Amino acid sequence: MTNTAVLDELMTLVDPSKVLTDPASLEAYGKDWTKHYPPAPSAIVFPRSIEQVQAIVAWANRHKVALVPSGGRTGLSGAAVAANGEVVVAFDYMNKVLDFNAFDRTVVCQPGVVTRQLQQFAEEHGLYYPVDFASSGSSQIGGNIGTNAGGIKVIRYGMTRNWVAGLKVVTGKGEVLELNKDLIKNATGYDLRQLFIGAEGTLGFVVEATMRLDRAPRNLTAMVLGTPDFDSIMPVLHAFQGRLDLTAFEFFSDKALAKVMGRGDVPPPFETDCPFYALLEFEACNEDVANEALATFEQCVEQGWVLDGVMSQSETQLKNLWKLREYISETISHWTPYKNDISITVSKVPAFLRDIDAIVGQHYPDFEVVWYGHIGDGNLHLNILKPDDMAKDEFFARCATVNKWVFEIVERYNGSISAEHGVGMTKRDYLGYSRSAAEIACMKAIKAVFDPNGIMNPGKIFAPE
Amino acid sequence: MTNTAVLDELMTLVDPSKVLTDPASLEAYGKDWTKHYPPAPSAIVFPRSIEQVQAIVAWANRHKVALVPSGGRTGLSGAAVAANGEVVVAFDYMNKVLDFNAFDRTVVCQPGVVTRQLQQFAEEHGLYYPVDFASSGSSQIGGNIGTNAGGIKVIRYGMTRNWVAGLKVVTGKGEVLELNKDLIKNATGYDLRQLFIGAEGTLGFVVEATMRLDRAPRNLTAMVLGTPDFDSIMPVLHAFQGRLDLTAFEFFSDKALAKVMGRGDVPPPFETDCPFYALLEFEACNEDVANEALATFEQCVEQGWVLDGVMSQSETQLKNLWKLREYISETISHWTPYKNDISITVSKVPAFLRDIDAIVGQHYPDFEVVWYGHIGDGNLHLNILKPDDMAKDEFFARCATVNKWVFEIVERYNGSISAEHGVGMTKRDYLGYSRSAAEIACMKAIKAVFDPNGIMNPGKIFAPE
Repeated sequence: MTNTAVLDELMTLVDPSKVLTDPASLEAYGKDWTKHYPPAPSAIVFPRSIEQVQAIVAWANRHKVALVPSGGRTGLSGAAVAANGEVVVAFDYMNKVLDFNAFDRTVVCQPGVVTRQLQQFAEEHGLYYPVDFASSGSSQIGGNIGTNAGGIKVIRYGMTRNWVAGLKVVTGKGEVLELNKDLIKNATGYDLRQLFIGAEGTLGFVVEATMRLDRAPRNLTAMVLGTPDFDSIMPVLHAFQGRLDLTAFEFFSDKALAKVMGRGDVPPPFETDCPFYALLEFEACNEDVANEALATFEQCVEQGWVLDGVMSQSETQLKNLWKLREYISETISHWTPYKNDISITVSKVPAFLRDIDAIVGQHYPDFEVVWYGHIGDGNLHLNILKPDDMAKDEFFARCATVNKWVFEIVERYNGSISAEHGVGMTKRDYLGYSRSAAEIACMKAIKAVFDPNGIMNPGKIFAPE
Repeated sequence: MTNTAVLDELMTLVDPSKVLTDPASLEAYGKDWTKHYPPAPSAIVFPRSIEQVQAIVAWANRHKVALVPSGGRTGLSGAAVAANGEVVVAFDYMNKVLDFNAFDRTVVCQPGVVTRQLQQFAEEHGLYYPVDFASSGSSQIGGNIGTNAGGIKVIRYGMTRNWVAGLKVVTGKGEVLELNKDLIKNATGYDLRQLFIGAEGTLGFVVEATMRLDRAPRNLTAMVLGTPDFDSIMPVLHAFQGRLDLTAFEFFSDKALAKVMGRGDVPPPFETDCPFYALLEFEACNEDVANEALATFEQCVEQGWVLDGVMSQSETQLKNLWKLREYISETISHWTPYKNDISITVSKVPAFLRDIDAIVGQHYPDFEVVWYGHIGDGNLHLNILKPDDMAKDEFFARCATVNKWVFEIVERYNGSISAEHGVGMTKRDYLGYSRSAAEIACMKAIKAVFDPNGIMNPGKIFAPE
């Protein structure tokens, strides 16, 4: 733990009331949504300016204090957990939209701006911030950038990376770098901005970000389609992708749907029971597009790939169809799911899913497996539900064994052990399944360039040296 | 120069006939389109495989031989120039499309695949490779990646960076890194792929690239609009961008048009003489879109932003309108233009252009300035034409003075001294106008991670140590 004299010095760098050490704050700010690790920070500090962040980093370098960045703490990999006496740097008071340019469609955000806040800001200006996911209501832009957040619209809009026009960062050395200056074209050497996106705070802190906005989507329309088997989802994706510009292509299994139906507050999409469902979305800008969608649907039915389907005819129907997919994560949380967030190239999905189902089913026939995810991006969320009669500890111990098998299959398919949740602490020991030893060595050397004293979120992505 | 014994050893690593030292080859492969620097390589080597590239890099490390990558050599900044006894590594024999996946819409390319070849391959498969520019007929994919090539469709499709799904590189240490494995989502630490894009071969060589393709555009339609002044171009851009998804938004001045008209082989867009012209393009997928475009045009005329205009009604008319823009560079090359490729955020363009026009006009009223460029991206090509009665040396010496003023203005506007042509040697000494000393120090340290002996394209981006 950081000693009192050192913490007293920290209090001289910011408003002293913005350094918290009470147990409730340490508990609240020391963890993220993983909740695996007992939080144990030394203090929480709330900077109000870039200068204060710089002063905190300089102080941390002087005293070799480890810093952990803290945004909305909605992460699922422990990247924002402070379990080892670190000082948490929380961006809650750097939460303003600083500037907006309607012409350039850019918004300058402090890192603590909440994702939903940016989405609403865009909407108020007739524009659109397209990165969207379950935790948009509390996640912050700084955290989105640190994890290169993805979500449900990636098939059309890409990851957070695509929307970062420029970044101001304070590196682990305490230098302020102004990266890319919001330019569309800038061929002047290595694009360091890209390194900080997805770096989980291990190189430095994002202290300001210029985010791009897009035009507002026009008449978003969803279809939910039931398929006779998993493999049919792929030609359905291919058929729709060939004829429409999709804004989303999600899937879920009958088990996932059953859990959501069990809530009693969401109408079923249609009568027919199907083992798998696809939810797709597009802009029905005019009748031609809607007709194209219906024609594609009919083609899929004729081919036997689709058993039944429904298309939204109103904003309310659109929202209700999305609930079928969006409520899954929250609903299954009652069963203490063991979660994996994996990705492969899209064309490999069917074989990959079969291999994983086989290995889990073979060794743990009593485990209920719920599949869903962003299948248009090759991103699958594998959820293993805890049997009611099994103790939590035993369940997680057995899942850890499954984990290794899953990652071996991921490695065999050249996939990613973390599609969009980051590495943090939960995936750290498995990084070698997705990145080679040579790559990991390069990453560590790059970290040393920006953070020579290793004070920036140590133990995240890599094991501590 | 590399000594004979060392070159003899090089010949054992590849087919000996694939090491050239004859004067014609040294001359041809030692330069790019800049033609400023007398080429002086020691040899040209043509690897045929990743293993051969690795062997060449290992050899270069053993003997401290500098290597220069060579693709289509269409660069405009001297990044592929070998003026100091380097060995040129030319990828002409690694020029195959290795794989194609219709489902994932990805193509695995060797680095020597020519841009046009990839565009045609995509077309043959009903798809589209959207990065396009003047030198597509001879530039290679490896070079496109090394410079993060941009061009005329960036407003819709982004730079080359957006289309690189995965990279295999041989680093300056001789290691093969397989970066991102073609995944859409991959949150497993720093995205090293991004570092190699735009690195101009200073970190390693791209030896394989998986490029994404897009759906083919539908009924591309162009408009050319004449405006009463430069400032009117901006509200025109804003109006069209608000109502249509543009695939291009280019501009050129009356001087640029006059030069192209002087050729006699391109029809004028319309009768009205205007000081500035915008060329915009969109997919007229259906009548609604075409009507929207016409309504926007009428709105612009009513506002006084547009004096006259024309919309293509056929593929031939589309091509003819594009010639007005595409022929500029080739046409003005007869006047030995001094070229600058600069960018700023789009909203700053009018003030920026005025400042530069003022300073050039004030000091060199006898210089003819031709403006054109990708204005939808904030990317301007400033071309100063040599007066007929001025000697080339004097002209370039005077332009070098102009250059400094231009870059001072670029710096003041937070812009880029090289929007899409890279740094190479021509912009190296001006890098500080766009990147801070701290950033440049980080870049050099990153180079040392991948290329500790400094053998990879030394003297490009940065001055040699």
